Amino acid sequence: MANILFKIGAIKFGVFKLSSGKASPYYIDLRVIPSFPDAFREICDFYVEYITNNIGLKNFDRIAGIPLAGLPFASQIAYNLHKPFLYVRKGIKLHGRERRVEGILVSGDRVLLIDDLLTTGLTLKKASDAVKAEGGIVTGAVVFLDREEGGKQLLEANGVKLHSLLKISEIADTLFEIGAIDEESLKTILKQIKKQ
Amino acid sequence: MANILFKIGAIKFGVFKLSSGKASPYYIDLRVIPSFPDAFREICDFYVEYITNNIGLKNFDRIAGIPLAGLPFASQIAYNLHKPFLYVRKGIKLHGRERRVEGILVSGDRVLLIDDLLTTGLTLKKASDAVKAEGGIVTGAVVFLDREEGGKQLLEANGVKLHSLLKISEIADTLFEIGAIDEESLKTILKQIKKQ
Repeated sequence: MANILFKIGAIKFGVFKLSSGKASPYYIDLRVIPSFPDAFREICDFYVEYITNNIGLKNFDRIAGIPLAGLPFASQIAYNLHKPFLYVRKGIKLHGRERRVEGILVSGDRVLLIDDLLTTGLTLKKASDAVKAEGGIVTGAVVFLDREEGGKQLLEANGVKLHSLLKISEIADTLFEIGAIDEESLKTILKQIKKQ
Repeated sequence: MANILFKIGAIKFGVFKLSSGKASPYYIDLRVIPSFPDAFREICDFYVEYITNNIGLKNFDRIAGIPLAGLPFASQIAYNLHKPFLYVRKGIKLHGRERRVEGILVSGDRVLLIDDLLTTGLTLKKASDAVKAEGGIVTGAVVFLDREEGGKQLLEANGVKLHSLLKISEIADTLFEIGAIDEESLKTILKQIKKQ
């Protein structure tokens, strides 16, 4: 899986300046995944299998996606699992008939949140708050990749169980093993995680 | 198809005030469709069949979705047709590493635009401009429902061939035939269209 991300350019190593101003030893753009049909399918199947085996299809009623980047994954997974889908806007600049929660949510429904990438966890935390504000019960959140920058801690402190299919440290280890990155890159990445 | 939309509450009749301030004899919210797995599947299949038979899978390289409401449909259709997917942001308030076109687009690629609903056509026109600005060739645009308020004309004046799976006048006719709306509602809707 790490190898696929590296091959399609969804993860790059070097020195990158994030929009927050911080420097990062790697750069992730999971938004390119749906541009590679085989990778997209493989990653959606990975989510579906994880959810079926580790959460259980009887333990949630609806899937909520997080715009924008999480939406193609979440709607695809809902479609494959034959679960009702809704999405939760970030809540800024609502206008007209827009709602925080778009789609059907009935009070008491158990909702599984799905996003692609976890960094600080703030977006998922706010989505969870929005679902709860409409009477939903948040079963948990599933992300494809956890950057291990404190998101899991923030979510679990707010009662949202986090499931991640991959962690950035695992990706770094794998890519080091297959010789795609050198030892220095590996150390920089692992140090970045420990800093948090 | 009209009947499904009516049943799941995606189309309602009465007097509605649109966010533009105009009154409308009907209200459409296609964002609820993915909350009904059977309806969502049926409508995605409808797009897939139309595209396969009327556009041809050899006649385009990539599918571009329009956020937000068009995204669950477009990404699903791309997945089913095994075509690379990208999406085109509305272009306001870009920040950080965000791009107008997210995903891979190579100069010379033939791109099929997919959205759910057509009203004025301005959103699709701007998406088409963004794709062309990056060197893409716009093969056409497919929407599920055309409100018949001038969108087709705007797009075709800008060289974008429009395909709609359903028209609001057809929905009104069908719902009148099956007795779901009365003659007065039908007339109001048809008058609304002719006004354009």
